[in-house]
Amino acid sequence: MAPTTKKALINVDMGEAYGNYVCGPDKELLPMIDHANVACGFHAGDPLIMDETVALCKAHGVKIGAHPGLPDVQGFGRREMKLSPEEHTANVVYQIGALKAFLDRHGVEMHHVKPHGILYGMMVRDIEVARAVWAAVPKGMRVFGLPGTNMETAAKEAGLEFWAEYFGDVNYRADGTLIVDRKKKPWKIEDVKKHVAKQLQESKVVAITGEEVDLPVADYPITICCHSDSPGCIEIVTATREVADKFNKERGL
Amino acid sequence: MAPTTKKALINVDMGEAYGNYVCGPDKELLPMIDHANVACGFHAGDPLIMDETVALCKAHGVKIGAHPGLPDVQGFGRREMKLSPEEHTANVVYQIGALKAFLDRHGVEMHHVKPHGILYGMMVRDIEVARAVWAAVPKGMRVFGLPGTNMETAAKEAGLEFWAEYFGDVNYRADGTLIVDRKKKPWKIEDVKKHVAKQLQESKVVAITGEEVDLPVADYPITICCHSDSPGCIEIVTATREVADKFNKERGL
Amino acid sequence: MAPTTKKALINVDMGEAYGNYVCGPDKELLPMIDHANVACGFHAGDPLIMDETVALCKAHGVKIGAHPGLPDVQGFGRREMKLSPEEHTANVVYQIGALKAFLDRHGVEMHHVKPHGILYGMMVRDIEVARAVWAAVPKGMRVFGLPGTNMETAAKEAGLEFWAEYFGDVNYRADGTLIVDRKKKPWKIEDVKKHVAKQLQESKVVAITGEEVDLPVADYPITICCHSDSPGCIEIVTATREVADKFNKERGL
Amino acid sequence: MAPTTKKALINVDMGEAYGNYVCGPDKELLPMIDHANVACGFHAGDPLIMDETVALCKAHGVKIGAHPGLPDVQGFGRREMKLSPEEHTANVVYQIGALKAFLDRHGVEMHHVKPHGILYGMMVRDIEVARAVWAAVPKGMRVFGLPGTNMETAAKEAGLEFWAEYFGDVNYRADGTLIVDRKKKPWKIEDVKKHVAKQLQESKVVAITGEEVDLPVADYPITICCHSDSPGCIEIVTATREVADKFNKERGL
Repeated sequence: MAPTTKKALINVDMGEAYGNYVCGPDKELLPMIDHANVACGFHAGDPLIMDETVALCKAHGVKIGAHPGLPDVQGFGRREMKLSPEEHTANVVYQIGALKAFLDRHGVEMHHVKPHGILYGMMVRDIEVARAVWAAVPKGMRVFGLPGTNMETAAKEAGLEFWAEYFGDVNYRADGTLIVDRKKKPWKIEDVKKHVAKQLQESKVVAITGEEVDLPVADYPITICCHSDSPGCIEIVTATREVADKFNKERGL
Repeated sequence: MAPTTKKALINVDMGEAYGNYVCGPDKELLPMIDHANVACGFHAGDPLIMDETVALCKAHGVKIGAHPGLPDVQGFGRREMKLSPEEHTANVVYQIGALKAFLDRHGVEMHHVKPHGILYGMMVRDIEVARAVWAAVPKGMRVFGLPGTNMETAAKEAGLEFWAEYFGDVNYRADGTLIVDRKKKPWKIEDVKKHVAKQLQESKVVAITGEEVDLPVADYPITICCHSDSPGCIEIVTATREVADKFNKERGL
Repeated sequence: MAPTTKKALINVDMGEAYGNYVCGPDKELLPMIDHANVACGFHAGDPLIMDETVALCKAHGVKIGAHPGLPDVQGFGRREMKLSPEEHTANVVYQIGALKAFLDRHGVEMHHVKPHGILYGMMVRDIEVARAVWAAVPKGMRVFGLPGTNMETAAKEAGLEFWAEYFGDVNYRADGTLIVDRKKKPWKIEDVKKHVAKQLQESKVVAITGEEVDLPVADYPITICCHSDSPGCIEIVTATREVADKFNKERGL
Repeated sequence: MAPTTKKALINVDMGEAYGNYVCGPDKELLPMIDHANVACGFHAGDPLIMDETVALCKAHGVKIGAHPGLPDVQGFGRREMKLSPEEHTANVVYQIGALKAFLDRHGVEMHHVKPHGILYGMMVRDIEVARAVWAAVPKGMRVFGLPGTNMETAAKEAGLEFWAEYFGDVNYRADGTLIVDRKKKPWKIEDVKKHVAKQLQESKVVAITGEEVDLPVADYPITICCHSDSPGCIEIVTATREVADKFNKERGL
């Protein structure tokens, strides 16, 4: 499949602190990104943090999406849990509604929905989970996901506007799925740059086991995901921004 | 102060189950009540139960309010917690938003907001808590509370429509405040009837210590609260309904 | 394999309430059973309930085991969660230690350890989970499990005393594994009696799909599991007791 | 009252991470301290972190105490909750038991018990809470607390060995009680040194409002508390160690 013709944008998870516990350097990252996925209290975030994060994103002009996760703060939403489809749907309805209340208070629109962590991985692998999660999203809403997988298929079925994700600091398996680590590992900045550039310019990626893998991005809008809990995330996002800007400039996007 | 000139209505907390744990006999109670206060997941309820409860209330034509509580399932929202005003506000914004998402899915309006358990008691006693909670409620919304207390004062300040509560199965102290028990105790049905009738007909109540207490109901709409976790709640609500219907009929309300 | 030559005993999960939420009729069941598996606060139970349950078991002369589960009150420990082996071990160490503190206060010995719900099912299917859980149990302790499965294999490896379970109110699959329902379904009492009798007398069971399945009980002590959250659990335990007593009497056990 | 004649020791809370969330720099602090108060999972810590923290303390030869808190990770055990005395006792029994299981695995004795955060503050102010918490501690155990307060009185009643705390990074009120902040604030290192020196050398402290306050230390063993979640905690503990070592050296302790 041909590389994207769309402008490369960047999304980062935000508001993943919890009570006194800090997660990423949200304030340092916000000036560099386009979209914030705001945690909704199930895998991270709490109501006060959500309120503060929405205010912060608004102040930086960063678009805000809901970032629903599994109900597991201790596992940061990265431990698989087998829920019924009805539970998945209800959990995501709940989290989107909770975030929307804060957006309403701050007079900001919800830009998108992006599932978090292992829930994202479960949707990639399992069409039933993908359907159950997307069933919770209001029709017509933008959703971010992994193209060419059940996330895309189910999003189309549900009448949602699918945006394709590339990744700055996540490795792929040879089958094109993502490796969701419990704790993020460090990346060399040069590797991040190569990783992002290859995805953008060739719509390909080198899997963790060395194979070159085609990424089926179709012609969806593109947003590159980086994580605020990756060690060295400021450098990672800086590098990703640089590669994305260069890509956009070269193509006049 | 003169007794109410308004029609007596009945509200009951609903959806206070949690996971596999059952709370009250919601299905048996719904045909007898006017307003359901639906738990929002902090003191009771979970997303799946909220979805089912909203559907159930809708099927019975019962109006639905949000029933936010303290974040304490183990204590059923009946253990006092000292939160900052900002935390109270954010917690209630979150819970109202979560419930609203389910109401939207079922095409039902939010009728009112009624705080749960000890949060209610804290609002009665402490104007700062009352202000913090009401600050989370959209302007113009109906709110249920104890008249003549900080709940009423703060509701007016916040531009909310205040409805006054009487109680079927809650005792008053001599100072007009309510006794919030951790676990509901049994009531004799005759006592429920006398308790409700006295509140409705005389705007008075006999305190737990025997004193007769004036209830300052002003001319607010009246809704009588019963609890689905009271032992014998079906009989309690049946008796309350009977007294309320008689009161309404005698006054042509 | 030949039927058991051992006396049939009965174990039931106890103390699976949570805060104000009630689970089974523990007080009614205790006079009929031999072993209580006391919930340790992860899937059910809380510290106060644990204290009360230990006191209650002691008063009835019922032997007490630890009943560790997954950290998921909302799912009642019946939703699969993928934890690392280190997490499983640490979780079970923690829960056993917590229960032991209450046993020490009441001057009672810990009789056994029996994992709860889906954790039990995961141990049956996955030797790594079985090893991780048993690694948390002090050497020489009695453990209850499903014979002929990874639970038995790993228990032997870990130097634990394995006791075999039969089931009063749980169905088997044709492969001899158990069906762990999220919510327990009703049983006809005649079916319970047949189910228990067949296991005891023939060491066989009729699977949910109709096949007759051999149960590899070896010559372990036998304890029959019933659940306090099954609808009609008092009748189920009464019937199981009757069949077990008859079996024991006929064999002079 | 005369200053202490005992050797000055240092204790720090440890293992207050939670899941992926980091708290203090435990590894950097351990070489400088005498006693670790290990969080037990209620206000912070989880089973895996407890296991790792016990191993770490053992490797550094630091003595380990249980650090039970209120059941409130979101509030880090620093939001007051009104529990019944029975709940307080059961909660602390549970947490001490859980930690003891990890100590047993690592072959380490429990050195002391020190309540955490606002639970400590509630014990200082309320003899009933102090009694309820100490009722959970095995007789004869060392406990750390604020001398001259209900913590001391109730500890004596309960037959516990009381150790008096001074503080490196906590301010006193003029009435001799402590100010428990939700989030620790920065300290100037010179202020820490003066604060610790004054407590050790004069058994006095300058309250936050400027008054000089007498500290009734009697002749208990002394341990100075610093917090691993204070900003600049490495410098704070380094300074406290320096002052304590100087004090001990000058007195030949």
